[in-house]
Amino acid sequence: MRSFRKELTLETETRLAFINITEQVEDAIKESGIQEGLCLVAAMHVTASCFIGDNEKGSIQDLTKWVDRMAPHEPLTLWKHNESGEENGDAHLKRQLMGREVVIAITAGKADFGTWEQVFYGEFDGQNSKNVLVKIIGE
Amino acid sequence: MRSFRKELTLETETRLAFINITEQVEDAIKESGIQEGLCLVAAMHVTASCFIGDNEKGSIQDLTKWVDRMAPHEPLTLWKHNESGEENGDAHLKRQLMGREVVIAITAGKADFGTWEQVFYGEFDGQNSKNVLVKIIGE
Amino acid sequence: MRSFRKELTLETETRLAFINITEQVEDAIKESGIQEGLCLVAAMHVTASCFIGDNEKGSIQDLTKWVDRMAPHEPLTLWKHNESGEENGDAHLKRQLMGREVVIAITAGKADFGTWEQVFYGEFDGQNSKNVLVKIIGE
Repeated sequence: MRSFRKELTLETETRLAFINITEQVEDAIKESGIQEGLCLVAAMHVTASCFIGDNEKGSIQDLTKWVDRMAPHEPLTLWKHNESGEENGDAHLKRQLMGREVVIAITAGKADFGTWEQVFYGEFDGQNSKNVLVKIIGE
Repeated sequence: MRSFRKELTLETETRLAFINITEQVEDAIKESGIQEGLCLVAAMHVTASCFIGDNEKGSIQDLTKWVDRMAPHEPLTLWKHNESGEENGDAHLKRQLMGREVVIAITAGKADFGTWEQVFYGEFDGQNSKNVLVKIIGE
Repeated sequence: MRSFRKELTLETETRLAFINITEQVEDAIKESGIQEGLCLVAAMHVTASCFIGDNEKGSIQDLTKWVDRMAPHEPLTLWKHNESGEENGDAHLKRQLMGREVVIAITAGKADFGTWEQVFYGEFDGQNSKNVLVKIIGE
């Protein structure tokens, strides 16, 4: 069995951000040299998500609006967490809605995706540098 | 380390469909011959979910209603994605709510489930043939 | 390849309960002796979740309120599942919202976490003894 670990670094410019990281994930899989295995792609922050979705502009706009409808950023008093002086109470809930991680199959040295599957990093408390963990095991 | 890959094919007859795929997953595990490992079961479509839930008719009806309350199909103008001419904007959000994949432990050659755990495929833009990826690694 | 399996037993005293299980998960990883691998932490019940979040009191209170707003416990007649005589129809939906499982990378014999990542068990139909499955594969 072989294993491989890599951290991706992403710059988020806005509070809410969705970044397509499919290429970086595919590059990590190639770099690992692993032919058959499982690849974990996980947000290292508790206010962010890694998920698989459609790379369509309208769909990303829908997600942006929808997560804020389900767990609004404002008023800040909505969330107990903000009483600690933070303003990211909503971001913890948005992340639960969208999940933390994806597990991707590796087959014949490549990410084993369906036609429209693209990997995204979703950030709900951004405006700075963020990390994604890629861990692969296999052979 | 050994690995095993299989695609399940499912016919969905309605737009929203929940299909119990526990038996197919258990058959794939048996077919793999793997005794100890991890089994990824993932929807290959971005408008569908694989998840583990209760095989109880009322509970499935609740899920059907609930996902549509959280991300309604209509009016179609609710979602930007539909401006591209599609009608499945809601399906992308329903899928995020329900998740893409499950990871199942394999112990002594069998799916290591709690008493009520059953694997389901949830489709939110159905009426045709759909695929589920089963990838197993272990020994 | 090596594998390791352990069941954690948790006592839940209230219907809704969030229990920090980070230490138990870290102990299981140490006990396994596995240095590089993947660790599945999964609720064995269909009305509970394992997830990774922030160990902050306010944030846990927000989750408690939020899951009940998204899928209310009462009135019990809201959910078809309750017609079977149960009162946990909401718990099945809360669990879908929060997910079933987390997959944790193991690097150099330890859980490979970001700074604020803590593992929680979320119970939505508690007041008795519950189980969490920890399954590790690696080397």
